[in-house]
Amino acid sequence: MTEPLRVVDIILKKKAGFPLSAEEIDFIVQGYSRDQIPDYQVAAWLMATCWRGMDDREIADLTLSMAHSGEILNLHDVAPIIVDKHSTGGVGDKTSLVLTPLVASSGLTVAKMSGRSLGFSGGTMDKLESVPGFRAELSLQEFRDAARRVGLVITAQSLELAPADKKIYALRDVTATVDSIPLIASSVMSKKIAAGSDCIALDVKVGRGAFMPTLDLALLLANTMVRIGERAGRKVRAIISSMEQPLGHAVGNALELAEAVRTLQGEGPKDLLELCFALGGLLLQMAGRADTPEQARTILQQQLASGAAWEKFRAFVANQGGSLDVLDHPERLPTATIVEPFLSPQDGYLAHLDARQIAQACMALGAGRTKTNAPIDHAVGVVLHAKVGEAVRKGQALLSLHANDSTRLEQARDILGQAFQIQPEPVAVPPLILGVV
Amino acid sequence: MTEPLRVVDIILKKKAGFPLSAEEIDFIVQGYSRDQIPDYQVAAWLMATCWRGMDDREIADLTLSMAHSGEILNLHDVAPIIVDKHSTGGVGDKTSLVLTPLVASSGLTVAKMSGRSLGFSGGTMDKLESVPGFRAELSLQEFRDAARRVGLVITAQSLELAPADKKIYALRDVTATVDSIPLIASSVMSKKIAAGSDCIALDVKVGRGAFMPTLDLALLLANTMVRIGERAGRKVRAIISSMEQPLGHAVGNALELAEAVRTLQGEGPKDLLELCFALGGLLLQMAGRADTPEQARTILQQQLASGAAWEKFRAFVANQGGSLDVLDHPERLPTATIVEPFLSPQDGYLAHLDARQIAQACMALGAGRTKTNAPIDHAVGVVLHAKVGEAVRKGQALLSLHANDSTRLEQARDILGQAFQIQPEPVAVPPLILGVV
Repeated sequence: MTEPLRVVDIILKKKAGFPLSAEEIDFIVQGYSRDQIPDYQVAAWLMATCWRGMDDREIADLTLSMAHSGEILNLHDVAPIIVDKHSTGGVGDKTSLVLTPLVASSGLTVAKMSGRSLGFSGGTMDKLESVPGFRAELSLQEFRDAARRVGLVITAQSLELAPADKKIYALRDVTATVDSIPLIASSVMSKKIAAGSDCIALDVKVGRGAFMPTLDLALLLANTMVRIGERAGRKVRAIISSMEQPLGHAVGNALELAEAVRTLQGEGPKDLLELCFALGGLLLQMAGRADTPEQARTILQQQLASGAAWEKFRAFVANQGGSLDVLDHPERLPTATIVEPFLSPQDGYLAHLDARQIAQACMALGAGRTKTNAPIDHAVGVVLHAKVGEAVRKGQALLSLHANDSTRLEQARDILGQAFQIQPEPVAVPPLILGVV
Repeated sequence: MTEPLRVVDIILKKKAGFPLSAEEIDFIVQGYSRDQIPDYQVAAWLMATCWRGMDDREIADLTLSMAHSGEILNLHDVAPIIVDKHSTGGVGDKTSLVLTPLVASSGLTVAKMSGRSLGFSGGTMDKLESVPGFRAELSLQEFRDAARRVGLVITAQSLELAPADKKIYALRDVTATVDSIPLIASSVMSKKIAAGSDCIALDVKVGRGAFMPTLDLALLLANTMVRIGERAGRKVRAIISSMEQPLGHAVGNALELAEAVRTLQGEGPKDLLELCFALGGLLLQMAGRADTPEQARTILQQQLASGAAWEKFRAFVANQGGSLDVLDHPERLPTATIVEPFLSPQDGYLAHLDARQIAQACMALGAGRTKTNAPIDHAVGVVLHAKVGEAVRKGQALLSLHANDSTRLEQARDILGQAFQIQPEPVAVPPLILGVV
């Protein structure tokens, strides 16, 4: 006869540093999800987990338990292989807007759920919603239909997948238990697994504009998520990419969408393209469409050069109600009333361009939100005219500020005063991709 | 301009291992006490405190914050010096019943709040309530009047002192955050400080029948509480005493009361008397009534021999409504219907007598409670006929079981089967007092 599980005993066990069984983890997750275990016990368990950590088996069990707290999508009636991409969040990160049509035009089906901007980190849905008419909120049926018809669909995370993760995440946010690798990894992966993807490419960002402050932590997170995939029967690989400076040149919703459009039309910034090829290459390889990174890159370059990726993006936006007129004429996207340069105070080489402060300047302009569901100004943001390693001259515009309010503009200028470091000696262009897992 | 405090930041600070300011600790304690901070944030903070600990200054700040969450009694209109004694809880521990009249008859005023039995640990109030008519629940005015009139009063912890401690303790109980030295020490001391005592003697028990499993932890707890006293302006000293085997011979409410009466009448067991003299001596020294332990012991022995301590106990019980008729004729206390011996299976020396298992046998008989406010059987328990170091013979009664139910009796017998170790070689009597702080 086994004793019935008691929450206090499970907390005590984790507190004492012992691994929990799958049954014990599931008891907490499902109990909390069904309102049978109170917040305060889960809060204590979360803090004990931050303290003692979890081994790989526990992390996978937690991930699967959260995934199974709701429906697990099965999209294999839509396509034999469903692929997905996830970024841990960065500044100027419009990778999904370029990568997903690139991969979808290569014949893979992309069915993706994506977040909105929160804090300094931008969100793909907000960028897409700068296109008039674009519908971010789809029903499950619409999601399936779009995946089948277009081969590319991106919807807001509103399908109530992994409800236990949503509830636990909200509790972590108010109990200072966010920064734990096992909890971060299982949260991300539970949603990805519930969304039904077979192959998942992860972009784990590290640096001033990312949640992971050090390469060691980023590698740990990436490896942890890849190992969850192994235990959960999904193919998962990860790129570790630098987020010291923003990706590409545009930061701000409509500005980033316009940059994505230019990229899909063959005029993208080098760093953005590099990351899209790397992540897209992992997906093609995992899906068995390419044997080597070089082969994958050739395929993706062809999709870009032929215009197939751009056509896929148009079809995707049109299918979700977005205006093709605006997409084809990005100057018709929401535009800020004030556009002013931010000038270099000296000659030299750009040594540092702080992604976090650029993001905070954009927050000051109204491009982001500090609270869920707060309104957002799609038009505002900044466009960088120089990136780290480039030579700049005194009086040259380092960036353009796009603002709709002169007070906010001045706040952004104040923040930007700390964002640049210029030195007399030449600076090497820093590497973007720091590792592949 | 200082930023307003945010609970999440305070939790994060403790989680990262930094000491909290007095203001931060008070923000949590008072906020929780006034229902302005939710359970789940306090639970996370408690677990982070178990993880990272607290320094002496933080522990004193936490203690004082909890003490000041309610009224701080000032009994100096009653007597110039108020003394108190606290035990961390043990098995067969009737020390308070003997010590307090001993000290009060020496001229000190004892105004004590005491707990009830919970788990394996007995409670002074339950023992006193085996005397018919005894009133454990006094109003604050009755408490003051009794202290003034008799010089000795013991009441249940119902005066709502340190309400924040009560609320936090209840949360610790369900979040597996009980076993933390800073949290234990501050909980005990907040109540003692709120109760208005000037001199506090602590009995920190260590061993199988105590909450502290090791001497190191007991010393740490004792030192922590003494240092809280220094910072809070109260005199605090502590005895570390062994709780491997029960104290004295009786375990069970009426049985322990009867043993206390015999002790006050000059026929007490050696170990109980030793502990009462040690703790009483600390109180007399702290209160300035004795310069040396020897001088204190002489005073206490005189109070016992003269019958003054016994008369003080009678006056105390009578003042709180207890029957002197029963007190003077302990055979009229509640009596069990079944009294049976538990026999030694072999000749030899008693090497180990497990206090925890004796307590669990008494729980099985109905002498204790697993839940607050559960009913209790005052009559049942055990009386030991041998203690560690004594020679025993096969077939001799090691103890008597006092039961009111034959099923419970058998359960108790089963537990007792593991409680004794008897060996052929002689065994030294183990020391009772392991340290003085």
